[in-house]
Amino acid sequence: MQDIRVIDLTSVLAGPFCTWLLASLGADVIKVEAPDGDVARTTPPLDADTSLYFASLNRDKRSIVLDLKSTPGRDALQRLLATADVFVENMRPGVRDRLGCSDAELEAINPRLVRASISGFGQSGSLSPLPAYDIVVQAMSGMMSINGPLGGPPTRVGFSIGDISAALFATVGILERLYRRDARGEDPGASLDVSMLACQWACLENAFARYLNAGIVAGPLGSRHPSMTPFETYRAGDGDFVVALGSYRDWPRFCRAIGKPEWADDARFADDATRIAHRDELDRLLGEIFALRPAADWIERLRAHSIPCALVEDVGSIADSELAAEYAAFSEVIDSGGRRRRFVRSPLAASDTAEQAAPALGQHTREILRELGYADSEIENFETG
Amino acid sequence: MQDIRVIDLTSVLAGPFCTWLLASLGADVIKVEAPDGDVARTTPPLDADTSLYFASLNRDKRSIVLDLKSTPGRDALQRLLATADVFVENMRPGVRDRLGCSDAELEAINPRLVRASISGFGQSGSLSPLPAYDIVVQAMSGMMSINGPLGGPPTRVGFSIGDISAALFATVGILERLYRRDARGEDPGASLDVSMLACQWACLENAFARYLNAGIVAGPLGSRHPSMTPFETYRAGDGDFVVALGSYRDWPRFCRAIGKPEWADDARFADDATRIAHRDELDRLLGEIFALRPAADWIERLRAHSIPCALVEDVGSIADSELAAEYAAFSEVIDSGGRRRRFVRSPLAASDTAEQAAPALGQHTREILRELGYADSEIENFETG
Repeated sequence: MQDIRVIDLTSVLAGPFCTWLLASLGADVIKVEAPDGDVARTTPPLDADTSLYFASLNRDKRSIVLDLKSTPGRDALQRLLATADVFVENMRPGVRDRLGCSDAELEAINPRLVRASISGFGQSGSLSPLPAYDIVVQAMSGMMSINGPLGGPPTRVGFSIGDISAALFATVGILERLYRRDARGEDPGASLDVSMLACQWACLENAFARYLNAGIVAGPLGSRHPSMTPFETYRAGDGDFVVALGSYRDWPRFCRAIGKPEWADDARFADDATRIAHRDELDRLLGEIFALRPAADWIERLRAHSIPCALVEDVGSIADSELAAEYAAFSEVIDSGGRRRRFVRSPLAASDTAEQAAPALGQHTREILRELGYADSEIENFETG
Repeated sequence: MQDIRVIDLTSVLAGPFCTWLLASLGADVIKVEAPDGDVARTTPPLDADTSLYFASLNRDKRSIVLDLKSTPGRDALQRLLATADVFVENMRPGVRDRLGCSDAELEAINPRLVRASISGFGQSGSLSPLPAYDIVVQAMSGMMSINGPLGGPPTRVGFSIGDISAALFATVGILERLYRRDARGEDPGASLDVSMLACQWACLENAFARYLNAGIVAGPLGSRHPSMTPFETYRAGDGDFVVALGSYRDWPRFCRAIGKPEWADDARFADDATRIAHRDELDRLLGEIFALRPAADWIERLRAHSIPCALVEDVGSIADSELAAEYAAFSEVIDSGGRRRRFVRSPLAASDTAEQAAPALGQHTREILRELGYADSEIENFETG
């Protein structure tokens, strides 16, 4: 997305993840921050006064500090917006109106601007005034209700799925509008209204399909699949591994892999539906068999029969593995303090793409104001660090 | 994406979710199925021989049955591809080469085609031959290692985050290539290689940032945030609710909301870092306070102080709520058997967008062959149901 300029009035996670992805695709993302900066700049852990949380999410962006409560700040934002292709914000609904960024103002400044707002509950509707964080949306959307140990309490998904899925849907929506504008000559349309709530519902499409059409209320299943088995975590002699039979074609091969070829013709286990009906019995039998060998042994046997399976890894075992190097999982940047830092690379980026570290607060204020045509004497009116 | 034609050789989840999203944006998605169909057509629960799982994921698509092992089937696919803008598949790496869809063949048929492959572990590399399902990628990516109860075993995220995040990233990548092709006149570029593994790593960007730059190995935290508190589930007098303080500005308001204004100046709780250090003590104190009133009471008090909070809902309580109606959460379609079915609407679709039910196997074979210019006498050579 070279030559696409994104004016980024986002903070914390959903908005910054969206604009990080746009930046990773080559867009010129200008992060507009208040004098006290994105609140995520203070999110621990801090290393040399830098939040690692912030540093990961704001790579490849530039930072300009503008006090949008001051006239010079608002003027500069208007001049920036006039040069831009995309406007993204994730403030509480209504706040942007008070900062000179209402729909009417943005349309007047730049009718070609693709505008996107990300929020917990949408820009209108009874929930829209509520402040929202990932865990709030996970709770209210039903996401927590299907996550956690079998029979246990609803549990937050361990990463911020509410924010990250909204960021991904918003990116899709922004690209679609840019496409219509620049490939079709269409109007960029009304402001894109992405709610974390609706994005969680989309992630739960299967659970809702089952409730709405068959009355089934999903609950936490631990590591079990709701409608297929074996499709879960098992304990081998020395640790945990997962097995995942996703096709009816897998079952006979699985039976051979575990030395029970006769189960392929066992009526109790004929298909997913009967195996689900006999799940406790099947799991007990499998538990006895799997306990006899170490996990790596089972992985080797199952893979030889093309059965999907895996050891359970953690971020440490992955980061230190040859796999991470082979798959170019991480990029390295040098931040404005001269420190080397490593982060996950975008899954859409080429393995040799260079990245820039997240900017210090206002690192590019002077540079961007100059690009806008401000004279040095005018720039004196701004905080430029 | 009107007038964008997508040739969809995908099955089960990651690919179909991607092409569902493209279809929801208006693309003409043609699902090419073998005579035995997408294996997800047999995924339970079935209702009137229709898999609800399949029916949710394949709305707004057309289905053509082609036997790609036969010459007429491959010829028809080539003719289809020549008319198309996008090719998406999520077969095991290498399989598409055997079906006449290698990169070289696709380039020869249609050099303007945007090509995307979604797989567990990428099209090349040591893991690429492995079959992959969501739980396998969740295990191998580290996703499971940060999900589940505090101190408990790694637990699969309760929905298929591995597939759905890959679908979303793939959709972003496809739209970016279409943009470059149609708005910039660029070559669509090499085939897009989206791995579920790399997409999970991207979802775990914060956990990896903490490990790579601070040596912290994340584990399951239950409903707790790794670096902020209070940011978790609490038990009220009658049930569970969540509270999520995401800004340092929230703490004094929270203290007032729970009737402990003096805590705002308590050194133990001065900021997230000290509250994390005193978390057990704080949680014990909060537990005593929250037990005194029902959850709805706390929600009301906390909201009055603009503190993010929520009741924990499930798919049933949501689906039957006024909220779902107000937010137009669901769409209704009538399938080819005349049955009304309801599903989650795309979060990017307007609330009044009409949807078409997922197609019966080969429902559009004849129609699509005619569009390609096949004579009725030639269509006799195909299975047309």
